[in-house]
Amino acid sequence: MKKINIGLFGFGVVGEGIYKVLEEKPQLNAAIKKIVIKDNSKPRNAPSELFSTNADDILNDDEINVVVELISDADAAHDIIIKAFNKGKHVVSANKKLIADHHKELLDLQAKNNVSFLYEASVCGSVPIIRNLEEYFDNDLLNYVSGIVNGTTNYILTKMANENESYQDALKAAQESGFAEADPTADVEGFDASSKLAIITLHAFGKKIDVDQVIRKGITSLKVEDFKYAKEKNYTIKLIANSKINHQTGEITSTVLPTFVELNKTIALVNNEYNGVLIGSSLSDEQFLYGKGAGRFPTSSAVLSDISALKYDYQYSIRKYENKEEGVFNQTGKKRIYIGFENQADDVSNIFDEIEERYQSKNYNHIVGVIDIEKLKQKEIIENPKLSIIAFE
Amino acid sequence: MKKINIGLFGFGVVGEGIYKVLEEKPQLNAAIKKIVIKDNSKPRNAPSELFSTNADDILNDDEINVVVELISDADAAHDIIIKAFNKGKHVVSANKKLIADHHKELLDLQAKNNVSFLYEASVCGSVPIIRNLEEYFDNDLLNYVSGIVNGTTNYILTKMANENESYQDALKAAQESGFAEADPTADVEGFDASSKLAIITLHAFGKKIDVDQVIRKGITSLKVEDFKYAKEKNYTIKLIANSKINHQTGEITSTVLPTFVELNKTIALVNNEYNGVLIGSSLSDEQFLYGKGAGRFPTSSAVLSDISALKYDYQYSIRKYENKEEGVFNQTGKKRIYIGFENQADDVSNIFDEIEERYQSKNYNHIVGVIDIEKLKQKEIIENPKLSIIAFE
Repeated sequence: MKKINIGLFGFGVVGEGIYKVLEEKPQLNAAIKKIVIKDNSKPRNAPSELFSTNADDILNDDEINVVVELISDADAAHDIIIKAFNKGKHVVSANKKLIADHHKELLDLQAKNNVSFLYEASVCGSVPIIRNLEEYFDNDLLNYVSGIVNGTTNYILTKMANENESYQDALKAAQESGFAEADPTADVEGFDASSKLAIITLHAFGKKIDVDQVIRKGITSLKVEDFKYAKEKNYTIKLIANSKINHQTGEITSTVLPTFVELNKTIALVNNEYNGVLIGSSLSDEQFLYGKGAGRFPTSSAVLSDISALKYDYQYSIRKYENKEEGVFNQTGKKRIYIGFENQADDVSNIFDEIEERYQSKNYNHIVGVIDIEKLKQKEIIENPKLSIIAFE
Repeated sequence: MKKINIGLFGFGVVGEGIYKVLEEKPQLNAAIKKIVIKDNSKPRNAPSELFSTNADDILNDDEINVVVELISDADAAHDIIIKAFNKGKHVVSANKKLIADHHKELLDLQAKNNVSFLYEASVCGSVPIIRNLEEYFDNDLLNYVSGIVNGTTNYILTKMANENESYQDALKAAQESGFAEADPTADVEGFDASSKLAIITLHAFGKKIDVDQVIRKGITSLKVEDFKYAKEKNYTIKLIANSKINHQTGEITSTVLPTFVELNKTIALVNNEYNGVLIGSSLSDEQFLYGKGAGRFPTSSAVLSDISALKYDYQYSIRKYENKEEGVFNQTGKKRIYIGFENQADDVSNIFDEIEERYQSKNYNHIVGVIDIEKLKQKEIIENPKLSIIAFE
């Protein structure tokens, strides 16, 4: 079995956790040889001779065969990964935004240098979604992947649903509990979920999609009144990332949208900071993978699984990506949508093809009906912070 | 990509489903060349020239490179698989009892003939538990696998819990709905779960365990009163198959026991005919895999995934089984157990090391306490139909 010599970039909670496990488990036959950090003045729970602030101490060390990249700076991470590939080193990363934004370039470089690039930790923490899509589900039979891939928003939505809290209060609680960052934009506006969905979509359907093309609406516009409506109808509201393919046309539709989910559905059981993903395929029942999507242990676990896999030279075969076509978006479909708004002035009933239900009151209004996706994704609609846009499953 | 020519044994709902998908999806590059059945007089939904009653029509056909074995007769299946291996053919099977009973022999023969033997459908239908244990979770980090692996008993227990039905009534309902067989023994006595647990244990910890050594109690002794007790304590009762390893000693403990599960735990969410398995590892959060465990679509789906995997010569590396040690059972531990019984004459308080709680009434009695596993697994205890034995998690 191959000995893994690791060069680690970043030594936060995940990096430290991985260091500890590898120290305690010599049978894993993997050890950290060098750790590159930005700030060498902080005290660290590892021998000082392991640390350096010079990336070349890892990149130019021929004995280091695996780079584990766990830094937050996406540009620096991009630079490190490319240099590592060119030096013939395998790379394990958890950097979803970087991967989603540069997926094609990184896969091409990986292939050119015949190294492995593994990134299970980038999507849903320790939930082995990429590995399952890669190895188990045949793309000819896969129809959709759909689920909750962002723990921060799920924590906030669970609080809003269970405790009738406003978005602002729930966000504050999430920040105080460590489930939301000081600047929560990437999570609450659905950017993080869109990056993960793009990565998932490539491994599910073999098509690279442009993250910016995901039809995306975050959770910041959701109101207490929307949850009241949900409760009356036996729904809850979840931020659902969904990619589906039309096998006849090859068209993919990828959305990240607040969505009414029936309370008796599997996905409604995913609460708090948990993630859960449904994989739907022809002739099969839905499969459901569930676990914690982020945090020290889940992320460390995913990184360690990737490191372990490198011992037997595992690579994503990405055989589904063989033809390397860009994804085609089906943006001409129709969708059943709820739109809530406080002021009559924000009424957008004119964009509905068909209105099923209309509620007006002094404080809150909503419309339920069918909208052409073309109209829904106009900036003045989907990006209008005054509109609570919620999809029906 | 390799062309798969399939010889299919058995043409029940699963076999027919697979035939249809392969016909409809030529891009899968797999086709059924011959189907061997027992009874040639029934009308079949496939061209008659495909059928034969002679196994040699598959086994002696050199163009057939994959045998898919879907027959119920375990002895006949055993014979077919061994002949197929010796002819250099890969085998896909869903036959858990056969596999659990002959696991070592079959793995050795597979290795000797350098063919693939895949059997995802044998455990939890389309839930990719074997593939995940094989490919994703490093055994050095795995601590336990625990869950609901039998849909029939879970259906019955769900009915007993939700509708206060007796075991007999719930069994009858399950039989009427097609979730239990006319002779339900293999399911309700936990034999089926034990076979699946043995297969899971080999792929989790690399140790072959003897199915007969699993500490096993079925659900046939459970009473309405046991469910009343569970409800009072905010539990439900599930038939939990659990294998755990002590990494210091290498000892494995494998049990299939009715178990009190707290209602807010993930596994309590698995109801009706569904299966759900938790995978616990060091440094990781629990992973949870969930889906339908049996039936036409889930089983077909798992078989098709295995067929697909053969296109790129997938084999279980079973690298965890490299040393091929027999498993060691830790049968000296202690366990917290509830025992319920109707007649005072069946009182078994003498086997408890420590009694925590004791309830006596005219109609029903129970004791809660700690029991040495050595005492629990005595035949006159564990096989006593008058005792409701329920473990605490």
